[in-house]
Amino acid sequence: MTQSNHILGILGGMGPQASNTFYQRIIARTAAQRDQDHLRLLLWSDAAIPDRTAGILSGQEGPVYDALLRGIKLLEGAGCTLIAIPCNTSHYFVPRLQQETKVPILHMIRETAVAVQETGAQRVGVLATDGTIQTGLYQKALEAVGCVAVTPPPELQRTVMSLIYDDIKSGRPGDGAKFAALDRFLHQAGCGCAILGCTELSVYREQAQLPPYYIDAMEVLAQQAILGCGKTLAP
Amino acid sequence: MTQSNHILGILGGMGPQASNTFYQRIIARTAAQRDQDHLRLLLWSDAAIPDRTAGILSGQEGPVYDALLRGIKLLEGAGCTLIAIPCNTSHYFVPRLQQETKVPILHMIRETAVAVQETGAQRVGVLATDGTIQTGLYQKALEAVGCVAVTPPPELQRTVMSLIYDDIKSGRPGDGAKFAALDRFLHQAGCGCAILGCTELSVYREQAQLPPYYIDAMEVLAQQAILGCGKTLAP
Repeated sequence: MTQSNHILGILGGMGPQASNTFYQRIIARTAAQRDQDHLRLLLWSDAAIPDRTAGILSGQEGPVYDALLRGIKLLEGAGCTLIAIPCNTSHYFVPRLQQETKVPILHMIRETAVAVQETGAQRVGVLATDGTIQTGLYQKALEAVGCVAVTPPPELQRTVMSLIYDDIKSGRPGDGAKFAALDRFLHQAGCGCAILGCTELSVYREQAQLPPYYIDAMEVLAQQAILGCGKTLAP
Repeated sequence: MTQSNHILGILGGMGPQASNTFYQRIIARTAAQRDQDHLRLLLWSDAAIPDRTAGILSGQEGPVYDALLRGIKLLEGAGCTLIAIPCNTSHYFVPRLQQETKVPILHMIRETAVAVQETGAQRVGVLATDGTIQTGLYQKALEAVGCVAVTPPPELQRTVMSLIYDDIKSGRPGDGAKFAALDRFLHQAGCGCAILGCTELSVYREQAQLPPYYIDAMEVLAQQAILGCGKTLAP
């Protein structure tokens, strides 16, 4: 294996643990026998970015967008050739961000919808932040590939948010009882599979070793990033 | 907790797994309740940097130094206010690198020697790459704090290198039998403690849950980086 000229830019920090897990996935999924087989990457972990869901739902999108754009410009200026953003909610801003840079930005939501399509499932559960759900990111992407998005009712959506914010983002292990309630709902609602559409839930997936029923958007993004940088997936 | 203006630059990729573990330590050791409590950091994971030990021992230091200097300049140009290099062997180049930048570079070797001094140990084992051992990095730093460095005899030094290169850098779990031989030697040699002076061994420390007898240079660096960026250590 030879070193390619690609440099992966990772716009992260949303949250830091999810970014670290994403970087770990990149390492683990790359076919490599020595340091030099891995891809070169620059990770900007901007923990100061305001909360994405809070910004979108309050109409105060400006500070979030501005911080994301500064991050994109930093990665572009440093020579990155491909950008990955391991935060589903932030993808609300990706079409605008893409217009501001010539460096291709991988679209985690659309890539995940394609991965879901390949499973053949018709009804697809979506576990994500209020920001991701209310902006319809996954609903639109799934509709585009002929699937129906199923989102939790308000009470269970609060459970999703609690798992993300009270547990994972607070540095605690995810509460299995919370996830069990979501799992029951998804199966009762006839979902053929479900998307882990928040990277904090991707962190939880590793803790809880969730079955393949759960399609992990972070995993999809990691694989696309590796392939996009000219590397091979580990067997 | 308020967001400080510090940005930690991490010059990594030597190897990628060690850099990821270092980033994980930074997250885990920072007192934080939400994303925005974490520090901002920029991690340049330059997997293409030639092997440090091979470069130093063959007299071909130039390509290694040049790659490290480019990394330092990248971090400086992006606004980093403090730099950490989670690779012990690379510290052979740090005095020269520091002359090329106004951004302070934490010196993992010297900081670790200070941490060792606080244990009161007189004889201190050093487990590190051939490059780190043969350049005397830890021997000099330990002598400066009044301790005696104890390094493994050639056969056991080959065991250290095998644990680092054949196991951890190759993406495999560390072989416990190899480490057990090193552990026996250190105790028989009368060492009061031993330094894990290669960040691949810091990765192994987590796998094997090594006791506090082993002073982990990466852990020292992580704590100094957090404090140096104006953050508080988690209780």
